[in-house]
Amino acid sequence: MLTIIPVKGIPDIELGDNLGEIIVARLKDQGEEFQEGDVTVVSQKVVSKAEGRVINLSKVTPSPFASFVAKEAGKDPRQVEVILRETRKIVRMKAGHLITETRHGFICANAGVDASNVAKGKDIVTLLPLDPDASADRIGITIRKLTGKAIPVIVTDTFGRAWRMGQVNFAIGISGMKPIHDYRGTKDMYRHTLRVTEIAVADELASAGELVMNKADKIPAALVRGYKIKRGKGTGKDLLRPEEMDLFR
Amino acid sequence: MLTIIPVKGIPDIELGDNLGEIIVARLKDQGEEFQEGDVTVVSQKVVSKAEGRVINLSKVTPSPFASFVAKEAGKDPRQVEVILRETRKIVRMKAGHLITETRHGFICANAGVDASNVAKGKDIVTLLPLDPDASADRIGITIRKLTGKAIPVIVTDTFGRAWRMGQVNFAIGISGMKPIHDYRGTKDMYRHTLRVTEIAVADELASAGELVMNKADKIPAALVRGYKIKRGKGTGKDLLRPEEMDLFR
Repeated sequence: MLTIIPVKGIPDIELGDNLGEIIVARLKDQGEEFQEGDVTVVSQKVVSKAEGRVINLSKVTPSPFASFVAKEAGKDPRQVEVILRETRKIVRMKAGHLITETRHGFICANAGVDASNVAKGKDIVTLLPLDPDASADRIGITIRKLTGKAIPVIVTDTFGRAWRMGQVNFAIGISGMKPIHDYRGTKDMYRHTLRVTEIAVADELASAGELVMNKADKIPAALVRGYKIKRGKGTGKDLLRPEEMDLFR
Repeated sequence: MLTIIPVKGIPDIELGDNLGEIIVARLKDQGEEFQEGDVTVVSQKVVSKAEGRVINLSKVTPSPFASFVAKEAGKDPRQVEVILRETRKIVRMKAGHLITETRHGFICANAGVDASNVAKGKDIVTLLPLDPDASADRIGITIRKLTGKAIPVIVTDTFGRAWRMGQVNFAIGISGMKPIHDYRGTKDMYRHTLRVTEIAVADELASAGELVMNKADKIPAALVRGYKIKRGKGTGKDLLRPEEMDLFR
């Protein structure tokens, strides 16, 4: 049995806030504490805010290319400028959509630059964390220091998908666990060798967490309790398909 | 808080088995019962077996095209023949991979035809259910008859994704709920209007269920308890991006 516990009461996050401390404190407030085996899921949005990955568009001067793309796409040229600074490759640019490969290698709309749910000013956008694995590590280290428990951390963001409607939550940064559960070579219940069965459990844990991380309320973090994690060094990059193995770039 | 409960002890499923009855009985065996608001997640594999969507390859004669594709891809020509019969469009055919659009509109490897975890013979493959929404409906109707409760049902399969490594569980058939939670037009906590925020909650519920549906054990079904579902008529097709809106076909 698995339990997914929202971490409630997390305040507006500002530059320099210690997310690990805040999560431990808020859990305590709701009569809960970390147990060995728990996984923490934390939304990119609060991580980016704590790390100062926030830009005021009034300070951004768009390049000629950004202005051109913005006109084609019907977007704010300053926002496009910020998107391009986060981009290492434009994957699709069509019908007002800008699907890019971020500097980390994530493929998503607008390089993960997001204007929703950020701050009272209308000109504020968040960028993805510079190094989401390091962000996850820092949260995990704080939790370990405060509780003595080694808790894997997944930093997440909601992305759209090819072929399917709607967004789901994905793992972008990982600490303390293997993101892929590899069933290849194991025998299934009929003793066949399972052929292609690598489950992206970190993405499934991110999706499970999202179900309690209400976008309209202030719930940017959750615990997943009861999942048999594979401990070890993992990274969000384990979930990225190398371009030469990808049929859709 | 969300709880995900595996339905244990489901036996080998055969043609004509009543999955709704079996799930209700096995839940009872583990001292559990459906509660109002629960969602059931059921793996395609058992649905296909109960519905006879199983083919013995020894009875399949591959067409010349299937034989050609099989040779290129290093696959069994009879299996490719079955895949092509389930296919309405080949999306990618490269490096041994056959990514197709199924007759229902799902884009996945091998049109969802699967040889793992099926039966003792080596020549048996399962096909996706003919109408996964109808499969979900039937399970839901049985559960309602036996328990008096209206329980949404999601039939799932694990698919690979563009750009990312590993497979995750997706919703292919839906009964009794809306698969997409639409936040567009609602105000976020800073009173901005959220722009593009449609969450594919049925896919997230499928992923959450998969975390307790161990492929190596016999756990092809799970309950998700505590999620605020939006009731109504939903279909797996709500999750399919129309081709004219898709940048990756």
